[in-house]
Amino acid sequence: MTSAPSPEALDALAGLLGPKGFTTDSDAMAPWLTDWRGKYHGAAAAMLSPATTDEVASVVRLCAENDVALVPQGGNSGMVGGATPDASGNTVLLSTRRMNAIRAIDRNAQTVVAEAGVILEHLHEAVLQEGLRFPLTLGGKGSATIGGLVSTNAGGTQVLRHGTMRALVAGVEAVLPDGSIFDGLAPLKKDNRGYDLRHLLCGAEGTLGIVTAACLRLVPAAAARRTAWIGLESPAIALQLLRRLDAAIGRDLEGFEIIPQSCLDAVLRHIPQTRAPLAKACRWHALVELAGESGDALDAALQAELAAALEAGLIGDVVIAKNDRESEDFWRLRDSISEAERAEGPALQHDISVPVDLMPAFIAENPLRLAAAFPGARALSFGHLGDGNVHHHVQPPADADGRAWLAAHGEAVSRLVYSHVIELGGSISAEHGIGQMKRDILAELDSPARIAALRGIKAGLDPAGLFNPGKLIG
Amino acid sequence: MTSAPSPEALDALAGLLGPKGFTTDSDAMAPWLTDWRGKYHGAAAAMLSPATTDEVASVVRLCAENDVALVPQGGNSGMVGGATPDASGNTVLLSTRRMNAIRAIDRNAQTVVAEAGVILEHLHEAVLQEGLRFPLTLGGKGSATIGGLVSTNAGGTQVLRHGTMRALVAGVEAVLPDGSIFDGLAPLKKDNRGYDLRHLLCGAEGTLGIVTAACLRLVPAAAARRTAWIGLESPAIALQLLRRLDAAIGRDLEGFEIIPQSCLDAVLRHIPQTRAPLAKACRWHALVELAGESGDALDAALQAELAAALEAGLIGDVVIAKNDRESEDFWRLRDSISEAERAEGPALQHDISVPVDLMPAFIAENPLRLAAAFPGARALSFGHLGDGNVHHHVQPPADADGRAWLAAHGEAVSRLVYSHVIELGGSISAEHGIGQMKRDILAELDSPARIAALRGIKAGLDPAGLFNPGKLIG
Repeated sequence: MTSAPSPEALDALAGLLGPKGFTTDSDAMAPWLTDWRGKYHGAAAAMLSPATTDEVASVVRLCAENDVALVPQGGNSGMVGGATPDASGNTVLLSTRRMNAIRAIDRNAQTVVAEAGVILEHLHEAVLQEGLRFPLTLGGKGSATIGGLVSTNAGGTQVLRHGTMRALVAGVEAVLPDGSIFDGLAPLKKDNRGYDLRHLLCGAEGTLGIVTAACLRLVPAAAARRTAWIGLESPAIALQLLRRLDAAIGRDLEGFEIIPQSCLDAVLRHIPQTRAPLAKACRWHALVELAGESGDALDAALQAELAAALEAGLIGDVVIAKNDRESEDFWRLRDSISEAERAEGPALQHDISVPVDLMPAFIAENPLRLAAAFPGARALSFGHLGDGNVHHHVQPPADADGRAWLAAHGEAVSRLVYSHVIELGGSISAEHGIGQMKRDILAELDSPARIAALRGIKAGLDPAGLFNPGKLIG
Repeated sequence: MTSAPSPEALDALAGLLGPKGFTTDSDAMAPWLTDWRGKYHGAAAAMLSPATTDEVASVVRLCAENDVALVPQGGNSGMVGGATPDASGNTVLLSTRRMNAIRAIDRNAQTVVAEAGVILEHLHEAVLQEGLRFPLTLGGKGSATIGGLVSTNAGGTQVLRHGTMRALVAGVEAVLPDGSIFDGLAPLKKDNRGYDLRHLLCGAEGTLGIVTAACLRLVPAAAARRTAWIGLESPAIALQLLRRLDAAIGRDLEGFEIIPQSCLDAVLRHIPQTRAPLAKACRWHALVELAGESGDALDAALQAELAAALEAGLIGDVVIAKNDRESEDFWRLRDSISEAERAEGPALQHDISVPVDLMPAFIAENPLRLAAAFPGARALSFGHLGDGNVHHHVQPPADADGRAWLAAHGEAVSRLVYSHVIELGGSISAEHGIGQMKRDILAELDSPARIAALRGIKAGLDPAGLFNPGKLIG
């Protein structure tokens, strides 16, 4: 679809950006042409690193005039190949990493304006110095950038209380496909001037605009945190516990993760220096995290609620972390599941969501459907029950050659899982996005009404198809 | 732009909908062809009242095939003529009022699925019977419908705590301009399948889709409410008070309105059976409302915070309503301002927002700018300080013929006000929308980048321009 940029167009881009902002050197470009999981490999005619929003706008105008397609990239830590160019080498990579200023922190309004290339961890540190917290975090915080987090509507482990990126973006600045700058940074609580471009750009994966800066909501830095590890019988019971906690202390409830015993076993087997929090194995575990102003108040509330849940027979054993170290140990168990599962052998991974109330039924029923269609295949789910979002892994039969089995059956397995999700009104991408990985399956399985609408929006805003071609819907 | 429907097309619509769903009787149509403020008058080739989503889809397909333009209408209580057809008589009015079923209330998930034609007050009553509350209310609750509230992203007096309609819509069902049904009702907390149609339809004023149902978030019915009337010196001090209350009891803070003494005077002059809450006049007043589970806890928190504010010299006199009756009396003063101001004589009204922190400066400076450009003109602002949204009225000079002065200067006055708002990054429509009233001024004053993007979206989703022509951006 795209054609190679003319030498004149590349010269003009080089002249515009200077040596710091333009390179065609293959060694310099190499790290950014493969996604961090090593799954997608691309090529680019040049890598552009503009330093300002105005430079981005000039680049886009120049590209539009010369029919040059652009692939925007932040920290290159996405999960679906959304920031990796295709193999044609016809596109140019636009890195936002030089745009890394924190423009302003407003303590009264509790907002920060950060440029697209600011790394999440740096943002955390900068606002903490003002006694504030940006309440979104995830494994890739050391590389993920604000622009990428907005463009993928990132989630993480605090979504239960604070929402995904969408809920935290008070304003956005972006360069649109015609090279104009949309300045929507002002944090307006009410604005009914028609179609909401902020929400449209959030999660658009750079296919409708290049996010250059965002105004983000902050909360006061939490004075105290409490973490509990709870044994229980099933996701259905975990959901009951979640409802009780939510009703009683929902304002302080930041995390509620579920973990099956088999995942915990895998972690204990493969990850050094880990140990089971509870004395006895049980079918499922819940990892619960509270954050608030008073540690004493959190202790009192947590203990009262857990005592009541014990008395009601909802839960088995419970351990509350005695200090930050123990709390980190609990979270390390949770965060090591993916690594431990990889050590167990190859598996298919699905990032899916359904309405929260339907999640226990999905977790119970999907393995049965899979086993019926693919005898011996094993499914396991873990993660963000409170968000209706689990990471769902399918392992080949124990006696099969794993890789061969996945090559033969993987696509049909994913189709079965996604069809089940769609049957429940769910999403085949809860938090990782579509990128290039799920583009075709989205077009195939999502409702024709929705796909046609997505295509209409794309055609209306980027008629030449120059923004992140081949991703999402393009 | 639109042409009259052919007799064949009207016959087909009549056949599709039957006598209950189709009329061309001018008496039957008359009430729905003028907006409730009597400002806009239109004509229609027919009024359609489909009873189901499938009927809406069939109507839209038939209209698309026959190039018939549609004007969707809910309760006909909008403020900007968004649901009133133009005078050509070439469009058909599509009323959602027969689609008035509450499909389901889910107590566990705290959601309700309501069809577009459900009246807000009926929804309030229905969910209250389940111990739940839909936390959005406004003056037109006896007529406003769910479909209209979603399509205009309605606000009201509880936005401070619960957000506008956008924040309360967990899912949406709509018929798109190609006649397809977008079923996005499932309340997914995480969904990263690309462009968010829910947020796009919310506030689109029926120009991109006809909302046929919505899944709405509910909260537990509040056990206790507390209302305080507070005298203070300025909006800047009111904002300081708001920040203190927000930090200490923000979770229970549902309303924070500001009222200048002149507005209170007008209410006391023109509205029967009203009396000033405070013994002495003061420059400004704040009306504060809390809602929570425990009345004692609210009392304790409110009294502690107000005592501290008194001690800090922030506020003057304070009265806390002793009972629901007094609380209603306080709110009646606030809600009667528009009526009282009308009785004072003609005035220009602006529904505007700026970032919350900039609002005190706007309120202080705008009257000076106006007086400099239009000697004798008086500006006053009141309303939702916590949302950065005030209703801003401009009164003609006391010695002028009000109507003549407004006819001569009104447009220039509005332009001055809106330009000031835009200078501060604000919005020329905070909660009422654009409709036909502000369509031209939006296109003129909003940034070209944003206007071009809005036009692109409209063209991409409704290329034939058949959905609510002449409104918003069409």
